Amino acid sequence: MIILGIDPGIAIVGYGVVEYKNSRFRVIDYGAVTTPAHTDVTTRLDMVYRGIDTIIKNYNIDEVGIEELFFNKNVKTAITVAQARGVTLLACRHNNIPVYEYTPLQVKQGVCGYGRADKAQVQKMVTSFLNLKKVPKPDDVADALAIAICHAHANRLEKTLSNIRKY
Amino acid sequence: MIILGIDPGIAIVGYGVVEYKNSRFRVIDYGAVTTPAHTDVTTRLDMVYRGIDTIIKNYNIDEVGIEELFFNKNVKTAITVAQARGVTLLACRHNNIPVYEYTPLQVKQGVCGYGRADKAQVQKMVTSFLNLKKVPKPDDVADALAIAICHAHANRLEKTLSNIRKY
Repeated sequence: MIILGIDPGIAIVGYGVVEYKNSRFRVIDYGAVTTPAHTDVTTRLDMVYRGIDTIIKNYNIDEVGIEELFFNKNVKTAITVAQARGVTLLACRHNNIPVYEYTPLQVKQGVCGYGRADKAQVQKMVTSFLNLKKVPKPDDVADALAIAICHAHANRLEKTLSNIRKY
Repeated sequence: MIILGIDPGIAIVGYGVVEYKNSRFRVIDYGAVTTPAHTDVTTRLDMVYRGIDTIIKNYNIDEVGIEELFFNKNVKTAITVAQARGVTLLACRHNNIPVYEYTPLQVKQGVCGYGRADKAQVQKMVTSFLNLKKVPKPDDVADALAIAICHAHANRLEKTLSNIRKY
């Protein structure tokens, strides 16, 4: 299964493409769709939409994992990022790719096994799972890969649970 | 000029289509794109996108006016509505329609002439400008028509100012 992990944003949308097969990971690509500041919002939204659309088509993505947004402080930033997350979800929908949403807590649990893991621990596990030589930068990219790993694990757990429920 | 006014939302997206010519308004259509609750978010976002896309194509829209989002309280609601606003803006962009954003204060000023007008006053002016027999319901629809009127007036004011600047 080819999984696309997405860390949503408007200036930087982190993405990570991984294959998950026989409980093993193979990293295929990772990076960020970026949009320049001081550009009108509809142009930036279209850049995000087209960027995600291109990744899905290029890598024959099966499923998408994406982080839920949590904001307590700057509502204006929340609105701007949420608009971009909306077009990100739409690009998945227009390609008929199922989307799964994870909270930051679930991502930590899914990667490290416990929800209180800090950023460095998550990044260390991502680097280890994917056999990378160093931690991917910027953080948005490492986060996107973490979400992809979380989705692979969540999927496996769910299937295991489904099996258990059968008996 | 054919103007589309949009009151953004996820459950109800109010829209109003008006023609503005020689400082007079003619209402063409108004209503709402609605999406059912308990439906997955990507489906709802796609319904909003396609709804706005259809309106733009049906009525040969020249320009769009849309309200800015302001939220102080429920950030979760803000995020959900902002995601839908993102795909609304994208539908405009994919049709190459210029989009203008107005704050609620600007809409009141643009319709009633002063920013402290209450909802009933705005609705009364909308009904009067457009020669409607009664106030359009729900409020989202009346708001969308108010935004269209605001945009027509803002546009006229801007052109007047540009003329003044020329001399």
